[in-house]
Amino acid sequence: MGIGIGIAILTKEQTVKDEDTAREESSSSTFHFKTYMLQKAKSVNQALEAAVSLRDPQKIHESMRYSLLAGGKRVRPVLCIAACELVGGHESTAMPAACAVEMIHTMSLMHDDLPCMDNDDLRRGKPTNHKVFGEDVAVLAGDALLAFAFEHVAIATVGVSSEKIVRVIGELAKSIGSEGLVAGQVVDIKSEGISDVGLEHLEFIHVHKTAALLEGSVVLGAILGGGSDEEVEKLRKFARCIGLLFQVVDDILDVTKSSQQLGKTAGKDLVADKVTYPKLIGIEKSREFAEKLNNEAKDQLAGFDQEKAAPLIALANYIAYREN
Amino acid sequence: MGIGIGIAILTKEQTVKDEDTAREESSSSTFHFKTYMLQKAKSVNQALEAAVSLRDPQKIHESMRYSLLAGGKRVRPVLCIAACELVGGHESTAMPAACAVEMIHTMSLMHDDLPCMDNDDLRRGKPTNHKVFGEDVAVLAGDALLAFAFEHVAIATVGVSSEKIVRVIGELAKSIGSEGLVAGQVVDIKSEGISDVGLEHLEFIHVHKTAALLEGSVVLGAILGGGSDEEVEKLRKFARCIGLLFQVVDDILDVTKSSQQLGKTAGKDLVADKVTYPKLIGIEKSREFAEKLNNEAKDQLAGFDQEKAAPLIALANYIAYREN
Repeated sequence: MGIGIGIAILTKEQTVKDEDTAREESSSSTFHFKTYMLQKAKSVNQALEAAVSLRDPQKIHESMRYSLLAGGKRVRPVLCIAACELVGGHESTAMPAACAVEMIHTMSLMHDDLPCMDNDDLRRGKPTNHKVFGEDVAVLAGDALLAFAFEHVAIATVGVSSEKIVRVIGELAKSIGSEGLVAGQVVDIKSEGISDVGLEHLEFIHVHKTAALLEGSVVLGAILGGGSDEEVEKLRKFARCIGLLFQVVDDILDVTKSSQQLGKTAGKDLVADKVTYPKLIGIEKSREFAEKLNNEAKDQLAGFDQEKAAPLIALANYIAYREN
Repeated sequence: MGIGIGIAILTKEQTVKDEDTAREESSSSTFHFKTYMLQKAKSVNQALEAAVSLRDPQKIHESMRYSLLAGGKRVRPVLCIAACELVGGHESTAMPAACAVEMIHTMSLMHDDLPCMDNDDLRRGKPTNHKVFGEDVAVLAGDALLAFAFEHVAIATVGVSSEKIVRVIGELAKSIGSEGLVAGQVVDIKSEGISDVGLEHLEFIHVHKTAALLEGSVVLGAILGGGSDEEVEKLRKFARCIGLLFQVVDDILDVTKSSQQLGKTAGKDLVADKVTYPKLIGIEKSREFAEKLNNEAKDQLAGFDQEKAAPLIALANYIAYREN
């Protein structure tokens, strides 16, 4: 998916929605989503570069950096920082946690790309980690990134109480493990080729595989920024909605766009005989569901200062209206 | 290696040393090492069983439990608890951290056994995790155990300050990652078949691959038990010595014992063309080095109450004098 927000997929009426329209919708202020994303991604990239410096043993750090610094829009770290700032915190307070969620996202991609999992040769236009460093190093570099994510939060977070840091580490771990990201991955793997997968089962996969870490990202930021319990829970619900939205849109794009438009192989889900929203409820109902999720997500932000909420509103629209 | 402490390998003079002698050496009190180990292992097993209960999604939890609850002497958790109790803490305070180090040890074995790593079919007399659950699930179950280790420490540790919990999480993560366990594994992998590996290089591998998590186990217990900085650092040095000792003894046993005596394939290091202490400095000098490490380890415990230090002294002797 690209930074630009292009053709809308939500409703027939919204067939063309350019970036400016999306920006305008997201806030009546002068907030510029693309500039915001690029600025935040730049800060995150600098922090990641410094956190995982090239040191001995060289090979493992080369492998970790290869995948971690391979680009990407840094959606998860930006969500973390945006949530922190929305409740009154500073970017610097959330930055170690923001880096941690990106480390974990990268680890999950590295392990997911392995021959014993999805067996992918390319990621973000580059050979996958195991293609360059070997499967053994790719497994270990993933493990190291996972461990380092926790070390970084524990050691580099400053200006907040230890109670909050412990709470954040618990939330982060939960979003990854056997009741989070990994739960989604394993249920997804075990569902391939099974014909009678229902809507509830599909939602379980997406809520865990995709939404859990997005939820973690937002919740970490909200806690570190000093959000009240009520604010944290509202933002948690917001994140869960946009996490599921992300996946519903992904499913729709897979059947409605060409490989060229997507920048990746289209129709992959059909070929892999994967259950998707369009397959279960059809394209129209999938679009309606996406619209409902986008509205539900934004409803959670209603009680916040709308100017401050502009980045999260724009992120929800971006996820809903992306064209790849 | 077995619980029983049998034939000594340290010096020619100490060719036969039975369990009672080792026990007697460890403390002049009535401390009984075997009973202690079995009691502590039982508590740890109960805690692990409760922590990783069989819940949905079943497959991932079955896989995690299969390896985590496959037996083993629980040396790392016992070290953690013993260090906690030595500085005045209670077993219950260290238990979540003790479980965490065992989860991480198990994860490292699961990933190490994968076809792309050591490609082992058997572990503790049972088919390895990937042989039972498939490589994909074995990778994911390892990831889930790694994440859950941190969640468990963050959520289940009670009766100590959040400052200590954050410190403990930082120490634990460091002992695993690219400057700990994983560093040792990757340098080990990259050293196979290289003929000019020196002593310093070999020590780097062992200090990281084996000693780092043993050090983490002891340090976590010492911090949680309320040890002073000086006590923590003494126990850190103790753990580093016994970690390296463990590996030196392992190298000696590989060339001096039969497969039957070891309960595993003897001469594996020679076949794998691995650099070992006997290969680099000969059997006699390896035995002298092991004796030096054992003494250095026990020197660190000199300032502590000797009755309370009995478990750690016995653990050092156990590691030094084990026969398999």
